[in-house]
Amino acid sequence: MSTLTADTPVQSLDEILAAADRAATVLAEGPVGSRVAGLRAIADVLDGNVDRLVSIAAGETNLPTARLTGEVARTTGQLRLFAAALEDGSWSDVIIDTADPEATPVPRPDLRRMPVPLGPVLVFAASNFPFAFSVAGGDTAAALAAGCPVVVKAHPGHPETSRATAELVRSALADASLPEGTFALIEGVDAGVTALKDSRIRAGGFTGSLSGGRALYDIARSRPEPIPFFAEMGSLNPVFVTAQAMQARGEEIVAGFTGSFTLGVGQFCTKPGLLFLPAGHGLEVQLIEATQNVAGGRMLNERIHDAHTDTRASLAARPVVRTLVAGDSGGPALLATDVPSLLADADEVLTECFGPTSIVVEYRDLTEAVEAARALPGSLTATIHAEDDETGLDGLLRELRARAGRLLWGGWPTGVAVAAAMHHGGPYPATMDPAHTSVGLTAIRRFQRPVCYQNYPDTLLPDVLKNHNPQRILRRVNGELTTADLR
Amino acid sequence: MSTLTADTPVQSLDEILAAADRAATVLAEGPVGSRVAGLRAIADVLDGNVDRLVSIAAGETNLPTARLTGEVARTTGQLRLFAAALEDGSWSDVIIDTADPEATPVPRPDLRRMPVPLGPVLVFAASNFPFAFSVAGGDTAAALAAGCPVVVKAHPGHPETSRATAELVRSALADASLPEGTFALIEGVDAGVTALKDSRIRAGGFTGSLSGGRALYDIARSRPEPIPFFAEMGSLNPVFVTAQAMQARGEEIVAGFTGSFTLGVGQFCTKPGLLFLPAGHGLEVQLIEATQNVAGGRMLNERIHDAHTDTRASLAARPVVRTLVAGDSGGPALLATDVPSLLADADEVLTECFGPTSIVVEYRDLTEAVEAARALPGSLTATIHAEDDETGLDGLLRELRARAGRLLWGGWPTGVAVAAAMHHGGPYPATMDPAHTSVGLTAIRRFQRPVCYQNYPDTLLPDVLKNHNPQRILRRVNGELTTADLR
Repeated sequence: MSTLTADTPVQSLDEILAAADRAATVLAEGPVGSRVAGLRAIADVLDGNVDRLVSIAAGETNLPTARLTGEVARTTGQLRLFAAALEDGSWSDVIIDTADPEATPVPRPDLRRMPVPLGPVLVFAASNFPFAFSVAGGDTAAALAAGCPVVVKAHPGHPETSRATAELVRSALADASLPEGTFALIEGVDAGVTALKDSRIRAGGFTGSLSGGRALYDIARSRPEPIPFFAEMGSLNPVFVTAQAMQARGEEIVAGFTGSFTLGVGQFCTKPGLLFLPAGHGLEVQLIEATQNVAGGRMLNERIHDAHTDTRASLAARPVVRTLVAGDSGGPALLATDVPSLLADADEVLTECFGPTSIVVEYRDLTEAVEAARALPGSLTATIHAEDDETGLDGLLRELRARAGRLLWGGWPTGVAVAAAMHHGGPYPATMDPAHTSVGLTAIRRFQRPVCYQNYPDTLLPDVLKNHNPQRILRRVNGELTTADLR
Repeated sequence: MSTLTADTPVQSLDEILAAADRAATVLAEGPVGSRVAGLRAIADVLDGNVDRLVSIAAGETNLPTARLTGEVARTTGQLRLFAAALEDGSWSDVIIDTADPEATPVPRPDLRRMPVPLGPVLVFAASNFPFAFSVAGGDTAAALAAGCPVVVKAHPGHPETSRATAELVRSALADASLPEGTFALIEGVDAGVTALKDSRIRAGGFTGSLSGGRALYDIARSRPEPIPFFAEMGSLNPVFVTAQAMQARGEEIVAGFTGSFTLGVGQFCTKPGLLFLPAGHGLEVQLIEATQNVAGGRMLNERIHDAHTDTRASLAARPVVRTLVAGDSGGPALLATDVPSLLADADEVLTECFGPTSIVVEYRDLTEAVEAARALPGSLTATIHAEDDETGLDGLLRELRARAGRLLWGGWPTGVAVAAAMHHGGPYPATMDPAHTSVGLTAIRRFQRPVCYQNYPDTLLPDVLKNHNPQRILRRVNGELTTADLR
């Protein structure tokens, strides 16, 4: 496995940022059609090179070929989803209020509002998704769709994959006639931090650890001119199982849980890190056996492996925590505690352990389950396994909603569908901004800001704001959603 | 004028925050209809007490009665606008993707997404709008509409107005059966900062100075659990006049400009602080005369008066700045410079001077105007006066759009219409988040976050996400906007 990284020198970084800055103006003024073409061109070229890309990534990340192949499909599907949404005029968020000289207390001018791109976006790629959250991943796709040039800071865990992908992206964008500077790859921590502090970078995106995300966020926000910085930093993803559900399908739940927390060697930000079970559930032996039966897997790289071993050891060493499966010999680990113990040591136990480790927490009754839910930090997801006709869960559901971005009824949080309705976000520390998602169509909203034109002559307005609306963009005109022309 | 403030004691602050926290749960679960009723009840009670409120405010702020009366109407109109939008099901931002077992690379679950309130919002009231940006102003209305309890930190410039308004708001919300804790007023810097650091406060809103906004933002964002903090901090609001426009209607522009920058004694965040005129425009004498003819007015309070005098003196003392009208005897001040001088001393000259002071900047040609535009910091507004058939302005318009939230063709930036299409925001330092507005319907978006329900039973979904849609909420279902039931 190559861990060599060629840090981007300051001179070429400056050229990259200057080119991104120039491209920003062209993209902001250019037709949406060119973005659509660019997104599709990237998707096509990645699909066309899937075998080569997967082979490079497999060598760098220890991830299996089937998983990586699926991930490329997810990545290109995502790019095409954004392209389709740009073509579909119903997502415009254009709002028009025509002049109203009779408005009180003051007459209203003609106001026409639309989203415009923020400018060059710096994307910090993730380790655990060398395609879907990396060079041509969700942040890049969303930023390009928003009309922003993208500078990706490669993750050092898969440098060759990053370079190969970047080369394909660059050529695809050139073929689609997007301006030079629309996309660039940089490498090295220094280059990333220098770029983040540069005034030409107008927003940032990040997927990774809490410590990394928070540190970069603090840099972005303490610039002389602060910029939005969207960080998705993983979470505990609690799962609550009721006594009725446990009784009805305990073994299925045991199997689903062990499958989910060990999937991809536990290297997902939606890995269920806490499983709340009713005390006396009687399936501890099955949980242990199911966990022991999961074959170990190599983690993404040495650094992540060591961090997992350390965090697991710290958790297991807490006096309130029992070890059910140690995971010493490379397999997954299962720990256990109960709600009073968890609450007594919440600061230490409620820590994300990135990797194949999870904690079973026993609760005595629903009141105790609610108490535990109240102590949980913000999460990307919260899951409840219960029977559909069960009552008395309102309090628990309410506490979970207050703390999570996605609420699952049954099922498991790993596997994040790329769809318009997806919300992959949540209150801190899951993300730095609970209003935004890093997966799904609305991820575009992170990289745009509104501009309102007041009393502009029709000829000088951007096309989507003009009276004539030949593209049939859906617009909110004087309160009514319409695709019609004005007047 | 009373400047007495009774700081909120720590004990009652804790009770206020506890009550807001309890109310947050009730509001988040409660029907939207109760928010509608609450907003309308506040509007009604303020309108019913307009004379008394205006009389108190006039005594505290030096603002004239007519202006204050209009401001109450603006405030109640704003509350009713939010109420109407809540009733209109077309603003829901509900996105539903039903299950698709055939989706690739992985089957798609049933996903239903809606915005939910963030929780208790702390609003820091402004000095210059004792009604519209204060206790029952835009931030309060938007947060209540979003379903968040509100704690307002009163501005010390108008304590009696704040208390009288708060008492009316509290009684109106109680009459409308909203939960206790939905609204509270606190006073004093310490109480404000203590509340901002409290984990029960989930977001903040602010209107005021750059230094104040940035300091509070830094507190909000360095909490153990950081929260969104939306600050609108005023700006320079540049106005560019072309040679053709100056020739066609120079005197009208002079009159409009002096009217706008001295309106309300220059105490608006949209006051035009920079007027770019073509060199040799020949109307300097008229500008001086028009400025001298504006009667002086008392500023909001002593502190603001002193700050204006100091900033004006600093600007006038810059070697690159000429004084056209000194404003020593209480009237407005007009300063002058040219683009090369401005660029040579940009850090000092490009400073907002809150009050009746503005700077005329002469440019030699459009290239120089564009160069000046490039040096400008982010602004709430940017205005251009040109002839409708003029060409060659693309570069200037592009630079202005890159730096402002609202772009005006003719007219003057003071006077911010409360409408769906309004955007009262802009890149830093105008605000801390360029994606949001503090005026107009979309101001609600600041105080909500999405939640996505995955595979929930219909009975447990919030009403707006259920299959049956009797309220005919507009929803995006599998890509199509529809008010129909599902299935």
